[in-house]
Amino acid sequence: MSDRFELDPRLAADTFLVGETPLSQVLLMNDARYPWLILVPRRGDVTEPFELSEADQAQLWQESMQLGQAMKAHFAADKLNIAALGNQVAQLHVHHIARFHTDDVWPGPVWGVGSAVPYSDAARDALMGELRSLLREPLDLTEAT
Amino acid sequence: MSDRFELDPRLAADTFLVGETPLSQVLLMNDARYPWLILVPRRGDVTEPFELSEADQAQLWQESMQLGQAMKAHFAADKLNIAALGNQVAQLHVHHIARFHTDDVWPGPVWGVGSAVPYSDAARDALMGELRSLLREPLDLTEAT
Repeated sequence: MSDRFELDPRLAADTFLVGETPLSQVLLMNDARYPWLILVPRRGDVTEPFELSEADQAQLWQESMQLGQAMKAHFAADKLNIAALGNQVAQLHVHHIARFHTDDVWPGPVWGVGSAVPYSDAARDALMGELRSLLREPLDLTEAT
Repeated sequence: MSDRFELDPRLAADTFLVGETPLSQVLLMNDARYPWLILVPRRGDVTEPFELSEADQAQLWQESMQLGQAMKAHFAADKLNIAALGNQVAQLHVHHIARFHTDDVWPGPVWGVGSAVPYSDAARDALMGELRSLLREPLDLTEAT
């Protein structure tokens, strides 16, 4: 068991790094169909949220709630979907997806349905800037170097 | 806005009431394909977890983690899936599903895939007894009257 954190390469390939909270990396899924952010606690060898220390669990819950609340308000979403699944990528990661009555697969869940629509470089840069402003304060977000 | 709690009739129709924790109802989904339990905080008019009071949020997280940990160990699951979706039923409810590499839809998510396999009365009664023993202590579970 190592406590060294390294982002799973499949998560890295599908996402952009928005920044870091005190506990987690904040990733933007490269899928323009929905605003979709993922929290990954920077802890090695953790698969289930209850494997974290109690302090880390409390921090993860707080970050998740702050993120969900900010996303719902900012994107005027009809519903947030929050989930820790981890069937494909075992490294603990928590999905936060802003859902709309008008989105492609409403009211179904998004995983494994259709194909991701990658952001254009311009759209990605604009959204990343927007997200960094949005999350800086509530999540104590810093841009990773 | 009313704070009176009433279980959503669609949740009631698909589940059995295992018991009550200090905050929540614990429901068993009537689908023998996976051990699948749902926590529903007994609060009126709550859709997103971040709409709960901070004390209730902390209690829900604790109950969710205790439930997930107990399920993973008891059923020797390969992975727990924990999710608050709420696209179909807006009332806040948190899914806890014990997943296995050998289950019907691994590694996909379970929602909306295939058809539920209802428990026989005998299998349901046995599992309900098992769950009540399992959860009495960690979740401070009481059988609702």
